[in-house]
Amino acid sequence: MKLLIVVLLSLSISGIAQKIPQGNPKRMEDRILALGRFGANPEGGVSRVAYSEADIAGRAYVMGLMKNAGLEVHLDAAGNIIGRRAGKDNKLAPIAFGSHIDSVPGGGNYDGDVGSLGAIECIELLNEGKITTQHPLEVIIFQNEEGGLIGSEALCGILPATSLDLVSNSGKTIRQGIAELGGNVEKLSEAARKKGYYHAFLELHIEQGGILDKKGINIGVVEGIVGINQWSVTITGKGNHAGTTPMDQRQDAMVAAAKLTLAINRAATSVPGRQVATVGRIQAFPGAPNVIPGKVIMTLEIRDLSHEKILSVFAEIQSQGIIIEKETGTTIAYTLTNENLPAPTDPRIQSLVAAAAKELGLTTQLMPSGAGHDAQDMATIAPTGMIFVPSKNGVSHAPDEYTSPQDMANGASVLLQTILKLDKQTLN
Amino acid sequence: MKLLIVVLLSLSISGIAQKIPQGNPKRMEDRILALGRFGANPEGGVSRVAYSEADIAGRAYVMGLMKNAGLEVHLDAAGNIIGRRAGKDNKLAPIAFGSHIDSVPGGGNYDGDVGSLGAIECIELLNEGKITTQHPLEVIIFQNEEGGLIGSEALCGILPATSLDLVSNSGKTIRQGIAELGGNVEKLSEAARKKGYYHAFLELHIEQGGILDKKGINIGVVEGIVGINQWSVTITGKGNHAGTTPMDQRQDAMVAAAKLTLAINRAATSVPGRQVATVGRIQAFPGAPNVIPGKVIMTLEIRDLSHEKILSVFAEIQSQGIIIEKETGTTIAYTLTNENLPAPTDPRIQSLVAAAAKELGLTTQLMPSGAGHDAQDMATIAPTGMIFVPSKNGVSHAPDEYTSPQDMANGASVLLQTILKLDKQTLN
Repeated sequence: MKLLIVVLLSLSISGIAQKIPQGNPKRMEDRILALGRFGANPEGGVSRVAYSEADIAGRAYVMGLMKNAGLEVHLDAAGNIIGRRAGKDNKLAPIAFGSHIDSVPGGGNYDGDVGSLGAIECIELLNEGKITTQHPLEVIIFQNEEGGLIGSEALCGILPATSLDLVSNSGKTIRQGIAELGGNVEKLSEAARKKGYYHAFLELHIEQGGILDKKGINIGVVEGIVGINQWSVTITGKGNHAGTTPMDQRQDAMVAAAKLTLAINRAATSVPGRQVATVGRIQAFPGAPNVIPGKVIMTLEIRDLSHEKILSVFAEIQSQGIIIEKETGTTIAYTLTNENLPAPTDPRIQSLVAAAAKELGLTTQLMPSGAGHDAQDMATIAPTGMIFVPSKNGVSHAPDEYTSPQDMANGASVLLQTILKLDKQTLN
Repeated sequence: MKLLIVVLLSLSISGIAQKIPQGNPKRMEDRILALGRFGANPEGGVSRVAYSEADIAGRAYVMGLMKNAGLEVHLDAAGNIIGRRAGKDNKLAPIAFGSHIDSVPGGGNYDGDVGSLGAIECIELLNEGKITTQHPLEVIIFQNEEGGLIGSEALCGILPATSLDLVSNSGKTIRQGIAELGGNVEKLSEAARKKGYYHAFLELHIEQGGILDKKGINIGVVEGIVGINQWSVTITGKGNHAGTTPMDQRQDAMVAAAKLTLAINRAATSVPGRQVATVGRIQAFPGAPNVIPGKVIMTLEIRDLSHEKILSVFAEIQSQGIIIEKETGTTIAYTLTNENLPAPTDPRIQSLVAAAAKELGLTTQLMPSGAGHDAQDMATIAPTGMIFVPSKNGVSHAPDEYTSPQDMANGASVLLQTILKLDKQTLN
């Protein structure tokens, strides 16, 4: 009975929704393929790393699309591309939305591109529908997302000065890269927007994981971007001859590392939630087949939407570690090497995204973003939301990254509906 | 009753044994320290790698001792030092005994040296006791034991021609090294001794493990030198984003590697015996903290006196591996990279060594040699025995390798008693 009401309701609302133009799968696909020619690799996908020639050419292509769609385009001092569309009341705070077009080396055609072209698609749809919003709109194409969210950090006024001298994947420093894009490092502070400047920020992005694809769900409503803690773990035992040392006289750091790896896996999987924990790198010393390792160094990474959950999983790992130390005659030391705090999205925007998707007849799932995004910086200055579309087989940062034309169009439709809902809503 | 007879018999024989001079702890220690000056490292121990200047100088020192003890010293074509002492009947096959004086880089003062100087000690004791054996005697100082038993392989006629071009720790090829020592590569076949040439071969050596030291036992009666099988193990899962891939969608090669490492440990410890199994080297690919490893490559080494036991431990590991493949969604492939068959010592010589030790009032334990030795090559051409003396804390191939003067003297005494017993015994 409840189901029937939902179906009827969605049919009746979709009657209203039909007035609003929906994302055009063919246009999205054509533009994805066109953008994919900049930095294309022979084996598929792109290496359009920030500040490379391909990046600069790709940005020129995207700026052309933005201008053709009637946006007033400028670069900020950080080199972010900003395209403005006037609202009915230009004293209102702008609604901003966008993503990035730079890629990792050997990346795919969808990470960042779907959100960037999806933002432009919304402008095309508003033009086609002859719709003017109350709030002015800003399409933002952030520079160098893959190299550490550089553009959004600058726009939010949180780019550390020391980052300017970091060498990016292009071989250029961030400082050189900003100049290359047409920004102005001397006036970087002018790029920084204050809290309250934006009415809201939205980012459409591919999921980069396999949850939506596996479950056949259309839209991910992002609860927030997970926090990331990374440790370097050093296990010290006693190096010894692998032939002359009986099994019961060993203090084998590799056996302890194996036990700890499984304890890490158990700690992440034995409690409810979507926390993840990973051992991605490991080295045994001295590293000869015929020597019992006296030392193992490995990495530990834990991610979750809740910082407390990260710490409680780590505490469980540490307490298992104490047992492993006793069992194996080793010592285990943890050094925190990186800590990004979680960035929750705005719950009101989550509801609007979910409602927009439902009105379009699309299925949704509330989910965390396991990867970092420009939206996590934007969440420090504006109410922020994120919309995910499926990644085929969960593949990302690889040539066979893929999202179907219809899924991209769905994403743009949900993005536009959410913008229109936000346009009618006071958030503060 | 049987026990009582043995005790009475041993008491009566030890009456005879008192006539035989016993190893001189001070002379052994003085010579160990003197030899330790060649290639001495500032932090202790030696780096007297084969064919180095230190090795050549150390060999000259040892040859001096041998000549002073009245041995007729010559080099064979492989560069092994051979010192001959005539017997009463020089048509009898010689009894040979000895060890090596080359070390690993950063090695200690006892590995090889104790057996080499212990062999010379026996000659000193025979001289002091004015004893001439029936059989002629040969003291052999093998060249380049640590670099792959090169000298003993040549003497036994089993040195592969391809080994001549291997680069040793000195930076010289084996071919160059043999020339450097005064050997003659062109006439290498002349160095090869046939089966039956020797009446028997004996090697005194430090244990290099901690069994004797831990149990407070004087002499290890070596049952044989263990066989060694080594594999390269490749575990293939699916590399993926460590943030966006939920725990239950992972095919984590590192988790599978951890499970396999513990299965290897269990396989070696869950059945009776002294087999050992080791994972000494491991690498995860791509090896980034934020990427789930799609591949892990690690080494597996199993050692035991019984080749069948090695294969059965491996079979157990493989069958556990099949379960792990299913649990983790990975595949595991094993490539055999090295196989040394076990070399049992002659059971008759084991008994003579045990009897000799008991007559000297020393405690014994039957044990395998977990490390490789020249004796394993000699076992292919002659009835062979090995005598172990304790290594303090089981340390070897390190500067803090240590065996006490009394333990060294005990070893020389047992070696001499065993030679004298063999002298009166027909083995074939």
